[in-house]
Amino acid sequence: MDVEQFRKAGYAAIDRICDYFNSLEKLPVVSRVEPGYMKDLVPAEAPENGEDFDKIADDYQKVIIPGLTRWQHPSFFAYFPTGCTFEGILADLYSSSVANPGFNWSASPACTELEVITMDWAAKMLGLSPEFYNSSEVGGGVVQTSASDSVLVAVVAARARYQAAHPETKMEDLVIYATTQTHSLGAKAAVVLGLQIRTIEVEWKDRYCLRGDGLRAAFEADEKLGRKPFILIGTVGTTSSGAVDNISEIAQVLKEYPDVWLHIDAAWAGVALACPEYREALYLPQINEAATSFCTNFHKWGLVNFDFSAMWVRDRKLLTEALDVTPIFLRTKQGDEGTAIDYRNWHLGLGRKFRSIKLWFVLRSYGVTGFQNHIRKGIKLNKIFSDLVEKSEILSLVTEPSLALTVFRITPPNEENYTVAAVNQLNLHFHNTMSARDDIMLTKTDLNGRICIRLAVGSSRTEETHIRQAYETIEQVASASIQSWLQTHAN
Amino acid sequence: MDVEQFRKAGYAAIDRICDYFNSLEKLPVVSRVEPGYMKDLVPAEAPENGEDFDKIADDYQKVIIPGLTRWQHPSFFAYFPTGCTFEGILADLYSSSVANPGFNWSASPACTELEVITMDWAAKMLGLSPEFYNSSEVGGGVVQTSASDSVLVAVVAARARYQAAHPETKMEDLVIYATTQTHSLGAKAAVVLGLQIRTIEVEWKDRYCLRGDGLRAAFEADEKLGRKPFILIGTVGTTSSGAVDNISEIAQVLKEYPDVWLHIDAAWAGVALACPEYREALYLPQINEAATSFCTNFHKWGLVNFDFSAMWVRDRKLLTEALDVTPIFLRTKQGDEGTAIDYRNWHLGLGRKFRSIKLWFVLRSYGVTGFQNHIRKGIKLNKIFSDLVEKSEILSLVTEPSLALTVFRITPPNEENYTVAAVNQLNLHFHNTMSARDDIMLTKTDLNGRICIRLAVGSSRTEETHIRQAYETIEQVASASIQSWLQTHAN
Repeated sequence: MDVEQFRKAGYAAIDRICDYFNSLEKLPVVSRVEPGYMKDLVPAEAPENGEDFDKIADDYQKVIIPGLTRWQHPSFFAYFPTGCTFEGILADLYSSSVANPGFNWSASPACTELEVITMDWAAKMLGLSPEFYNSSEVGGGVVQTSASDSVLVAVVAARARYQAAHPETKMEDLVIYATTQTHSLGAKAAVVLGLQIRTIEVEWKDRYCLRGDGLRAAFEADEKLGRKPFILIGTVGTTSSGAVDNISEIAQVLKEYPDVWLHIDAAWAGVALACPEYREALYLPQINEAATSFCTNFHKWGLVNFDFSAMWVRDRKLLTEALDVTPIFLRTKQGDEGTAIDYRNWHLGLGRKFRSIKLWFVLRSYGVTGFQNHIRKGIKLNKIFSDLVEKSEILSLVTEPSLALTVFRITPPNEENYTVAAVNQLNLHFHNTMSARDDIMLTKTDLNGRICIRLAVGSSRTEETHIRQAYETIEQVASASIQSWLQTHAN
Repeated sequence: MDVEQFRKAGYAAIDRICDYFNSLEKLPVVSRVEPGYMKDLVPAEAPENGEDFDKIADDYQKVIIPGLTRWQHPSFFAYFPTGCTFEGILADLYSSSVANPGFNWSASPACTELEVITMDWAAKMLGLSPEFYNSSEVGGGVVQTSASDSVLVAVVAARARYQAAHPETKMEDLVIYATTQTHSLGAKAAVVLGLQIRTIEVEWKDRYCLRGDGLRAAFEADEKLGRKPFILIGTVGTTSSGAVDNISEIAQVLKEYPDVWLHIDAAWAGVALACPEYREALYLPQINEAATSFCTNFHKWGLVNFDFSAMWVRDRKLLTEALDVTPIFLRTKQGDEGTAIDYRNWHLGLGRKFRSIKLWFVLRSYGVTGFQNHIRKGIKLNKIFSDLVEKSEILSLVTEPSLALTVFRITPPNEENYTVAAVNQLNLHFHNTMSARDDIMLTKTDLNGRICIRLAVGSSRTEETHIRQAYETIEQVASASIQSWLQTHAN
């Protein structure tokens, strides 16, 4: 493909993407395909000779589009939203056109420098303490692929710090701390690194958040067994219910455990710190005081296209001392002189994409005000939904709504006469019925044995009408589920 | 930005990218900026209010373009090439427009299914054994971010397999095996996972490749000390000199060590397996016989834009048993029924980009024949360069050229009268002089104490004229370096 062919194919791609967004609302949210659908559409081997690009792009339309789950759809309420803005798409386009592995400053100075600057933009917008800014030259921010990678980096660095202070420690004795509500990234980090994880039980009465007493009890019990606490993953906005660990109490406890690294996983909720009115409830002052590292995913609710997990550390040396491996072919004048950050020593791999351009485009095009408006709109829409649930006779809130997330259950008349298992069956029945529909997407969760339904707002295309429509659908399906469930659960 | 604004900005972006490629040859290869250049061009805070996108895109031109190292430039010969094709750019554009975290089948069926199919396309094109195909439903292929991630996944899975077979093993006793020529990804995996690594010395006479005897000796010595070998990273095409470990001898030794996982890191050279004439020299039959996992980066020499590290395993259960962590909110009908691959259990994180579309576009547009032609062209161009070096009186080959890589040294008249250190100084002087130029980019390396210069061909835009021009420049600079060096090293 030469430059002029690319221009033609590029314009056509832009037009197709415009068509996609223009028709988005009419498309199903959930793909209707069955597993294995593509085998009949795509041959089992690459073609021997090159094909015309028009044909390839047509196949994108025929083969790919029908098999997409539309995370951009205004009626997508599953998991958490994923950022997809036109600014983000354009940034990915520019970034791809100058493809480079960006592992050190000289591999492409612009990539490193824009990351250094825009991560400071984000830190300031979120209200993080200046200690976390790259301009502090002590702490700093870095783009990771996902919150799982951010936590892996934090655990590796925490382990290195702990082992440097206590060289006699056996790997087998090291323990990662989290709660039963921590995202599976905690368990995965433990599995990847071959370390123990302790998931502390949290309770409904505490809104599923970790309290100081629970943490202290776990530390004390484990230390008696010779185990070594070295990192706590505190969550600000859990996936299941949006719970916010009590960072204030946690910080108090950690004063007695200076060897324990506090990593804050605010993958979803962290971007809400852009709005000053949520900072106290999300424990920003305590995070600024006590967190060793902090992570939020701009690719969730933060308008940036996947992947963009923003991670900050209070002391960059904790990363570089744990991760720096520099053979001669990677040595550069700038790295040796320390005049530039070599981000390869801030993450697990070596090569890295030029991703900061996405944040740059988004924050410039929206401005801080536009970004805040987007967050506030999600919270406002969720309030409309949760108010409707509160008034409903067959739906009930499981816990207070958290920012743009509502967790609810289908509750039968005279619920007290049924076992939890029976009501769980009702909720599973409801979720299965909803999953068979393609006009709305929700996910389920389990909160201490109770099956619940999550509705997460935050797609930039969702408006009040979609929320009201979602509520109507949910109530209708819930009502039908109750009728059908009652037939098998007559008291 | 609404759809019509996006259409306008999108066309403009395509035009800018066309301009970039049209002017590429006239641009410097190496950016002329100094560390910190961007601080004067970009404010320290995000704007309060949104800005016009035309202004933002203009700033891309003013701020980013001057700070790029042009890996796409026909005179870029540093590191290894990085893929950047128009097909790859278009694929990234489409992929970004349907941003989704792709962690399981239902998160976007098309993403998983296209990866399943195109990784089989690639496996067939490279001549991998059917055991590695996804269609085998036993082994399979997966896209990782980089070769570092691929090796991390392999080491984690190898550790899990070893510990399952030998539950009494202490982490402290486990040893990763590699050579002194293995890419730093080996050392980094050890650092990340907190495991020991043994780098076996390799010799010039063996062309810096690992032999069976060296491996056996290392195993035997370590086992006497109670250490547990559990994985060997064998390299097919080292970064320093393109060395190919003797997989035939290695496979023989490993027959006696069935607990040791053989991971083949063919990050750079692996794509050359597309051409049948290189398969024997790259030990394809032995890889097919003995490798537990195999990795090659299509984003290097393989025409696919970063990131696209292709990894295959002989038994997918080795990955899923080591990495599967499935909380309720990630459970799906398809996952529970086993009708679809959930790729999140094949890599370290959770979320993953839709990357297979890049390979799909590239392999369809080029065809297998076009892909082979690209590889053969790189090797042919490198032969032209290495032939010139062989004929030169002041340059000499350090080791036989490997595929599209030549490693050479500047050799002064009567070299035998100088110490290695003195000749190293000459080569460093040469490399420093070259690094100060912006019309060509080369990297240096160290082969068993000798500083050498690498010239890696493979950018899809490099032609014979660029090779001859590069040679002329190198010879001129080398000649001047010798003159200046002789003044300080008069015998």
